Amino acid sequence: DPNLKIFSLNSNKALAEEIADVVGVNLGKCSVTRFSDGEIQINIEESIRGCDVYVIQSTSSPVNESLMELLIMVDALKRASASTINIVIPYYGYARQDRKARAREPITAKLVANLLETAGATRVITLDLHAPQIQGFFDIPIDHLMGVPILAEYFQKKNFSDDLVIVSPDHGGVTRARKMAERLKAPIAIIDKRRPKPNVAEVMNIVGNIEGKIAILIDDIIDTAGTITLAANALVENGAKEVYACCTHPVLSGPAMERIQNSSIKELVVTNSIALAEEKKTGKIVERSVAPLIGEAIIRVHERQSVSTLFD
Amino acid sequence: DPNLKIFSLNSNKALAEEIADVVGVNLGKCSVTRFSDGEIQINIEESIRGCDVYVIQSTSSPVNESLMELLIMVDALKRASASTINIVIPYYGYARQDRKARAREPITAKLVANLLETAGATRVITLDLHAPQIQGFFDIPIDHLMGVPILAEYFQKKNFSDDLVIVSPDHGGVTRARKMAERLKAPIAIIDKRRPKPNVAEVMNIVGNIEGKIAILIDDIIDTAGTITLAANALVENGAKEVYACCTHPVLSGPAMERIQNSSIKELVVTNSIALAEEKKTGKIVERSVAPLIGEAIIRVHERQSVSTLFD
Ligand SMILES: Nc1ncnc2c1ncn2[C@@H]1O[C@H](COP(=O)(O)O)[C@@H](O)[C@H]1O
Ligand SMILES: Nc1ncnc2c1ncn2[C@@H]1O[C@H](COP(=O)(O)O)[C@@H](O)[C@H]1O
Repeated sequence: DPNLKIFSLNSNKALAEEIADVVGVNLGKCSVTRFSDGEIQINIEESIRGCDVYVIQSTSSPVNESLMELLIMVDALKRASASTINIVIPYYGYARQDRKARAREPITAKLVANLLETAGATRVITLDLHAPQIQGFFDIPIDHLMGVPILAEYFQKKNFSDDLVIVSPDHGGVTRARKMAERLKAPIAIIDKRRPKPNVAEVMNIVGNIEGKIAILIDDIIDTAGTITLAANALVENGAKEVYACCTHPVLSGPAMERIQNSSIKELVVTNSIALAEEKKTGKIVERSVAPLIGEAIIRVHERQSVSTLFD
Repeated sequence: DPNLKIFSLNSNKALAEEIADVVGVNLGKCSVTRFSDGEIQINIEESIRGCDVYVIQSTSSPVNESLMELLIMVDALKRASASTINIVIPYYGYARQDRKARAREPITAKLVANLLETAGATRVITLDLHAPQIQGFFDIPIDHLMGVPILAEYFQKKNFSDDLVIVSPDHGGVTRARKMAERLKAPIAIIDKRRPKPNVAEVMNIVGNIEGKIAILIDDIIDTAGTITLAANALVENGAKEVYACCTHPVLSGPAMERIQNSSIKELVVTNSIALAEEKKTGKIVERSVAPLIGEAIIRVHERQSVSTLFD
């Protein structure tokens, strides 16, 4: 369909190429560069008048650059008379700032939703929002995809002969662990962190039976990797046979790589929602692509078919 | 007045301190830092409920970081029940992207205005917009200050004994040069650039009499300094006795410093609308403060007095 156009900005070019392949189109021509003073310069180099445009951009690090590229691109598409502007955000940055945890904090996840709508986005396709409530921050349709099937499939193919247990590193992630457990037909366990007194180290208590089992830790985001590596070590100390970890969004900032390298985690399985820098592609990290999932979602959105059945 | 609060973000801290001094208040307490992954973290550390808040931030380089700090701060102030949110933007970035010069370009100066209003700004105070039309991009009140008096005053105090001529480096800047010329009681000249054929060097034609005079070039923004240094050299070649240059906004990116150093410009007078990096504070650059101007504007806005009379 010549009316379907996919454009990539700078955060996930390789993923965008893969998605375009799945959909069966070439990426639209555009240049996204910087003026000498650092201002973003965007030129869309083909007509998109009347087209349904999909823009692929994670608002990953450098988050403010990525977000401004997306906003300016949407502005340019709107002024160039695109019929619909569908923004595909595999990783939605600022998602952890989704509520006022303290007085006088911003709610940046909501601000970003407002900014994207103001720029002119007409639909959002995204993946594993840190909080599903962020869907409600938008007043335009949002399709919320799930990374669990992709991560589960990797472990299924390993055909482990030992018993598995799926572990949530905190209470917030239990629903996700449960979904993974259903796919792998395994029980779940939960790491129950608690600080006995202020300024005393946290105690890692494990709820559930992990003794002699292969434990698979699952989280949505791994950022500095403090939580996940402490959890992995606690699992081994408490009798787990081996520990794997997985997440949808490998933010991996600051001390993350060193912590993972030095931890008891055997493999960390991630998706390419965030492009991994070359130096992060170490032996422990396994990358699975979300391109088939996102490509199929784009096809279904474009053909007015249900996207939710993608997860049946 | 305890209801007047001034906050500074990271782009112009020294200027903000000076402005607070002029207004006679202390800067409000807030921390504007980064999480490990580069996301902006803002905490407002005093109550601002019911207050008239002024936030000082140029959207200068790194422009996308500066702009996002401002948007997130405005969001936080709105949610913390500020009565009015007045954003003070001494240098308004993206102002040169104020129209579609080519097909399918964004109009980022308008996008930025929309984003600031969406975040919750209720008034703008700014200085020498690249195009005065940008005032109309906002649907909230905007006070547009002028840098010319500050730059003119510096040259007045020099009490030159030779004749002066104020020179606009291009046709777009003639109005500004005219205002400067009135204050210095001098005539104007204009550099009339033209390219005889494609791919042939531009010819610098000077309209007006500069022979034996002290020429003062004036522009709003000096970015890579190509235009201004070529103009200065053309003035000397055509018989000007000495050449000074001045501008409100010293963007000074890329080759700017080297070009200025190697040019016939004797002194470059700029304002602190953009904070100068230490390495740019060379002997040729003279900095004048806009703090008295902006401070007085804030006082007048707060007391519901006219700001336009500031320029009589
Ligand atoms: N980029 C970030 N890196 C680390 N912490 C963050 C970030 N953004 C927000 N937060 C904090 O993370 C907490 C929310 O995380 P969670 O409890 O997992 O939803 C809030 O207290 C936020 O202040
Ligand atoms: N940050 C920038 N640096 C250099 N040129 C720019 C920048 N932003 C916009 N422009 C271009 O500058 C031109 C407008 O400048 P002007 O003619 O002086 O108003 C347009 O063609 C823009 O594409």
